[in-house]
Amino acid sequence: MYVILMYDINEKRVGKMLKLCRRYLHWIQNSVFEGELSEVKLKRLKSEAKSIMEDTDSLIIFKSKDERWLDKEVVGDEKNKIDNFL
Amino acid sequence: MYVILMYDINEKRVGKMLKLCRRYLHWIQNSVFEGELSEVKLKRLKSEAKSIMEDTDSLIIFKSKDERWLDKEVVGDEKNKIDNFL
Repeated sequence: MYVILMYDINEKRVGKMLKLCRRYLHWIQNSVFEGELSEVKLKRLKSEAKSIMEDTDSLIIFKSKDERWLDKEVVGDEKNKIDNFL
Repeated sequence: MYVILMYDINEKRVGKMLKLCRRYLHWIQNSVFEGELSEVKLKRLKSEAKSIMEDTDSLIIFKSKDERWLDKEVVGDEKNKIDNFL
């Protein structure tokens, strides 16, 4: 399953969330991540995220059964070049 | 065509970009928007965005031919309730 995940998390907790999401997905921009993830791993990620999140924090997850059903286009600066390199 | 758009724009230009994206799509979180858009309208949106963007600014667009190929899940606070209401 192909996943695009984006969070809006209070700065007090954003470091933890970034670390968590990086363990499961590739960072592509700001607070946005993408990657292939099994149903089980996504469930685990969500459960770990919920344990970090409080009040107004939010997480949006788009799922597509097949990556081929999604086209990605980057206009301007591609931020994740460094992320892929590390 | 179903579109998820996210930008990372310098704060000097972010107001303009927000206004532009709201004209074409629904705001769902932070700098993330979604919505149904024709190929022609997406082209227009990209062209207008490019005229705002400078150096390190970036725009990522995910496209899916059919909204049904995408599942959306919100964990925590759903930010766009107010946006839909207005």
